[in-house]
Amino acid sequence: MTVAVFNGLIRPLLEGRLPDWVEPRWFLSTEELLALAPEAEIGWFDTYDLPARAESARRAVKLKWMNTLGAGVEELPLDIFRANGVILTNGAGINAVTIAEYAVMGMLVVAKGYRQVMRAAERHEWLSDSPGKVELLGNKALVIGAGAIGGGIAERLAPFGVEVTKVRRTPGEGELGPDDWRSRLGEFDWVIVTAPSTSATEHMIGEGELAAMKSTATLMNFARGNLVDQPALAAALKARKIRAAWLDVVDPEPLPPEHELWTLDNAHISMHLSGRAQNLMFIRSADRFLANLDRWHRGEPLSHVVDLGAGY
Amino acid sequence: MTVAVFNGLIRPLLEGRLPDWVEPRWFLSTEELLALAPEAEIGWFDTYDLPARAESARRAVKLKWMNTLGAGVEELPLDIFRANGVILTNGAGINAVTIAEYAVMGMLVVAKGYRQVMRAAERHEWLSDSPGKVELLGNKALVIGAGAIGGGIAERLAPFGVEVTKVRRTPGEGELGPDDWRSRLGEFDWVIVTAPSTSATEHMIGEGELAAMKSTATLMNFARGNLVDQPALAAALKARKIRAAWLDVVDPEPLPPEHELWTLDNAHISMHLSGRAQNLMFIRSADRFLANLDRWHRGEPLSHVVDLGAGY
Repeated sequence: MTVAVFNGLIRPLLEGRLPDWVEPRWFLSTEELLALAPEAEIGWFDTYDLPARAESARRAVKLKWMNTLGAGVEELPLDIFRANGVILTNGAGINAVTIAEYAVMGMLVVAKGYRQVMRAAERHEWLSDSPGKVELLGNKALVIGAGAIGGGIAERLAPFGVEVTKVRRTPGEGELGPDDWRSRLGEFDWVIVTAPSTSATEHMIGEGELAAMKSTATLMNFARGNLVDQPALAAALKARKIRAAWLDVVDPEPLPPEHELWTLDNAHISMHLSGRAQNLMFIRSADRFLANLDRWHRGEPLSHVVDLGAGY
Repeated sequence: MTVAVFNGLIRPLLEGRLPDWVEPRWFLSTEELLALAPEAEIGWFDTYDLPARAESARRAVKLKWMNTLGAGVEELPLDIFRANGVILTNGAGINAVTIAEYAVMGMLVVAKGYRQVMRAAERHEWLSDSPGKVELLGNKALVIGAGAIGGGIAERLAPFGVEVTKVRRTPGEGELGPDDWRSRLGEFDWVIVTAPSTSATEHMIGEGELAAMKSTATLMNFARGNLVDQPALAAALKARKIRAAWLDVVDPEPLPPEHELWTLDNAHISMHLSGRAQNLMFIRSADRFLANLDRWHRGEPLSHVVDLGAGY
């Protein structure tokens, strides 16, 4: 028997579907997670308490395989996993559909000035002209990090007539590499960040990058808050050096109520909700985990294994 | 020389581009329009004062060709045009791009509950879960009136994985005819009205149609307010018989401040702005008109001629 430790919230989606060689243990609290972790050979330790998740991962001395629901793994002790030969699988792509949908919504909300329309509607006021006059047709977008999310955004933008350029570690035809995109920043109406959070991507958008963007461009971040130098962004927004920012992710999260980003009329903050705006995340995650469990048992390579060196 | 009467606002886009056989006259007020109308052989009488436009069209006894910027022609005296052999050309499709973009925005705003996200942001409040949980992927949409707008919506929804069924007067493969869609209403997550306003389409969505829709469905109207029985819609929204309505058009416009539709949290009112959320309308209209002027001179059929009997 292999001991596997799961968050009890996923129990309804796994119970009855687990093979008989798995001995499941379910935690319902941080205390239970920390207590069960040392027995886990397979662990799915997700909880909103990220420090507790990391601590339990450190205590999981028998761990061979760790699974996580999300795509970001920067809060997990990757160095320990590497030292102990733990395989880490993540949810890359699980939320890509809804995040890509959210990104297109964000572009359209900015383009059409829809926030002002909503505010007028709340005042029961009929606007005679559109506060936003941008058509996406003919726009150019740079998508930095063309994984499942960036790819999904590009796919959805195609029939809008948006020309999308992708930045990828190993660029293909018509794509840009990690060192090529900065000099091209002035060409784009939309700069959309969907890259993983690693030491190499921290503050990849800073004062220089913002200054290189068109004054009519919008920066969107669906990755992690630390990819953007937030004080530099706030300054650029206040000085109208760029049109707007759509921040699904910020630093820190939650953003404190007194933070100035809330007060800027060209900052749109969507509270890391993009991936949560759907009901299928847990179902897709359970399905993917069970398929991997089958591969594990047959000794086959798992799908969606994180490169512990690269961090995604 | 052929006398052509234009709104002076379009003058910068036409002057210098008109052929020498055209004698242009420009009106800058309703009085000037009414005074110039009787001389017009070609008329482009658009003004926000729709009754004055209709009256000037009635006075235009020499008129051979009338052009209009918009797609809707229900405010013009079509019977008089028909009796006098006046050709009417309209702007069908001119605003289709931005309206299609707006429609996709509306779907996403409803799907993700974005209005509540925006309200929370105004309170500087970080939401921990998404107020909307709908993914468009796998949804079914009915587009009633598959002209340039409906077609543009369908095209943009394809990579979202939305299955679109079009209603068309003469249905093609996989499309529905004017008498077929009512019995199928219960199948769709989105019912999107983009049909012209004619006597045949007035109140085409009423109590019966709303009752036949899924309780999770959203009605969207980008056509004219009178295509929907608005009291029946308000009742359905209040009773939660459908999820939401997105009304770019209402009856009357502007919607009075005291109208109850403003107060319903599942009614989204976008103030007939969808077509105005772009800067190219006048440029596209002038280009189209000049191309038609050339055809007119050569005795060729004009493009975008309205069927005066059908009313679109």
